[in-house]
Amino acid sequence: MTRGATPTEADLIRAIAARTRITGRTPRMSLGIGDDCAILRPPRGHELLVTTDFSLETVHFRRDRHTPESAGHRCLARGLSDLAAMGATPLAIFLSLALPPELLRARNGQPAWRDRFLDGLLALARKHRVPLAGGDTAASPATPVPGTTTGLALADIVALGTAPQGRALRRSGARPGDALYVTGALGGAAAELAQLAAHPRRFARLRAPADNSAHPHLFPQPRLTVGQWLAQPGRASACIDVSDGLSTDLHHLCEASHCAAVVEVVRLPIHPLGAATKDGLNLALHGGEDYELLFTAPTSVRIPRRIRGIPVTRIGTIRRPRRNQPIVSLLTLNQQEQPLTARGWEHFRTTPF
Amino acid sequence: MTRGATPTEADLIRAIAARTRITGRTPRMSLGIGDDCAILRPPRGHELLVTTDFSLETVHFRRDRHTPESAGHRCLARGLSDLAAMGATPLAIFLSLALPPELLRARNGQPAWRDRFLDGLLALARKHRVPLAGGDTAASPATPVPGTTTGLALADIVALGTAPQGRALRRSGARPGDALYVTGALGGAAAELAQLAAHPRRFARLRAPADNSAHPHLFPQPRLTVGQWLAQPGRASACIDVSDGLSTDLHHLCEASHCAAVVEVVRLPIHPLGAATKDGLNLALHGGEDYELLFTAPTSVRIPRRIRGIPVTRIGTIRRPRRNQPIVSLLTLNQQEQPLTARGWEHFRTTPF
Repeated sequence: MTRGATPTEADLIRAIAARTRITGRTPRMSLGIGDDCAILRPPRGHELLVTTDFSLETVHFRRDRHTPESAGHRCLARGLSDLAAMGATPLAIFLSLALPPELLRARNGQPAWRDRFLDGLLALARKHRVPLAGGDTAASPATPVPGTTTGLALADIVALGTAPQGRALRRSGARPGDALYVTGALGGAAAELAQLAAHPRRFARLRAPADNSAHPHLFPQPRLTVGQWLAQPGRASACIDVSDGLSTDLHHLCEASHCAAVVEVVRLPIHPLGAATKDGLNLALHGGEDYELLFTAPTSVRIPRRIRGIPVTRIGTIRRPRRNQPIVSLLTLNQQEQPLTARGWEHFRTTPF
Repeated sequence: MTRGATPTEADLIRAIAARTRITGRTPRMSLGIGDDCAILRPPRGHELLVTTDFSLETVHFRRDRHTPESAGHRCLARGLSDLAAMGATPLAIFLSLALPPELLRARNGQPAWRDRFLDGLLALARKHRVPLAGGDTAASPATPVPGTTTGLALADIVALGTAPQGRALRRSGARPGDALYVTGALGGAAAELAQLAAHPRRFARLRAPADNSAHPHLFPQPRLTVGQWLAQPGRASACIDVSDGLSTDLHHLCEASHCAAVVEVVRLPIHPLGAATKDGLNLALHGGEDYELLFTAPTSVRIPRRIRGIPVTRIGTIRRPRRNQPIVSLLTLNQQEQPLTARGWEHFRTTPF
């Protein structure tokens, strides 16, 4: 936190610093918020894993559809899911947060948007025992949008994790013959997003669900303990999280591994929210933001049906890439192969929400 | 980089990845851009230092006043200066960058704003031998600002550094009796900013200055090698960078150290750009963004007049805090003491530019 002079910015930093008590301190954090940098002590013999992810109002969330708790939860879930995909143990998180003045103030007896956003973010941090160690604050740029708002909420989350030297899972380790697996179920986030688009106020009172899997879009659950299990020697060969959508993320994995893959429709675990629509298969294939783990392992490795309580399903096979054959194919119910093109989330082309 | 599907976003990531050749690889970076996280290897026995800093259009820079190269340079300078203030050696940087589509395209034979921004940022990274290891990209929120623009350029820089265990300089180590020093000269950045406000197009062709000190606002120089020198055992007792302004940052240092301080006007190194105005002293006291180092050391420590080629000036003394005495005092030319209030940069209250 470099700058902190005014009552108001000092106040925002204080609100954040006060809340770091929620996530507490760890022996790995020598110094948290309050100096020019935070100081961390990664365990000896471990490598450091780092990811950054924007959460920008109107691009990644909408203030009129997502509760502040959901926006905060989703902001951190994106970062933690990247750590999960590499099998890392979270070390610390950093939050850069720019808000318009109206979001700093309590209103109508409700806590300020700022406080509820932080509550959502830090509840997830506490669950995974990762401390908020620093960040930056700013007034967000004034945007003269007619009507309600004077500026947009802009957040960038930095997640740091560690893994024993050489053990981090990568996208590039899949080999022909490996089996292809996915955790949890797919398409639920996209199905819930569609519900939200149809009924924007439907979940206006939802702060955090009792059941982890009930709100895959509003409160996605990063699969950290599964990733750590998979990164043990002799288990997964490659891993990526399903953030853009199965079709797109499987292309990323295949390209990094110089392999091809075939997915069997019959095996796909479709989320109940998706299965309840006419479009469940498409949502599972292209929906994105499920934050499940898509991973590969040699068939000689025994992958249980549940890892750390999360269901795991074999959905296909990695194979050698061939000329005139698509990188990713889909084996349909009637045993026909067809190309599975990458049609997941696309910035600059996809219109969000 | 979690998401990277479309031609256009893939293109932005490619443009960034291609440019990482500018900063190259280091043995400390096991894996750079292209997976869910980057993998770094901090040196054994070292602690990790982390800082994040926003650079938001209209808050931290203006597209009609700053060249893209200056905006990129300033973005990284903020982060590296935080590392310098703690005596760290840079390990890697991460950039989250959201841009409106118009900034991705070359226009009128000029390279795209995106490319020039990255060139400015990465030239500074190369100078300090720090690799760009990852980040995030997004389309920036559409802001229907009348006239020219469809959205704002939003950046968040993450700078990671290392320092031998227990050696990082903190704000909190100053003790009564310590001497107070500053590197370089103060008020130059504010003076150049005032020139820019008066003549917005004055530096429209400036890409990077030959003389490091010539453009303290547009191309500030983080004092990394000085910070590393100061962090050697038995040298500085406390340090902070002058980002908000001497008056505000000295308050931060005194509060963290539970001390008071007196600054002697006669000793202040005023930047020539400030000295050429009627307001040089005020700019030096409150201007901010000089990114010089403000540090303390016991008087028994010999601090040379130049460290790593940068002039160093003693400007005052740390003393015991007393009731009814301001935390920071100014000793005027006629040897009168007066309170020096914190009047540097203030988010939410200061109108930027």
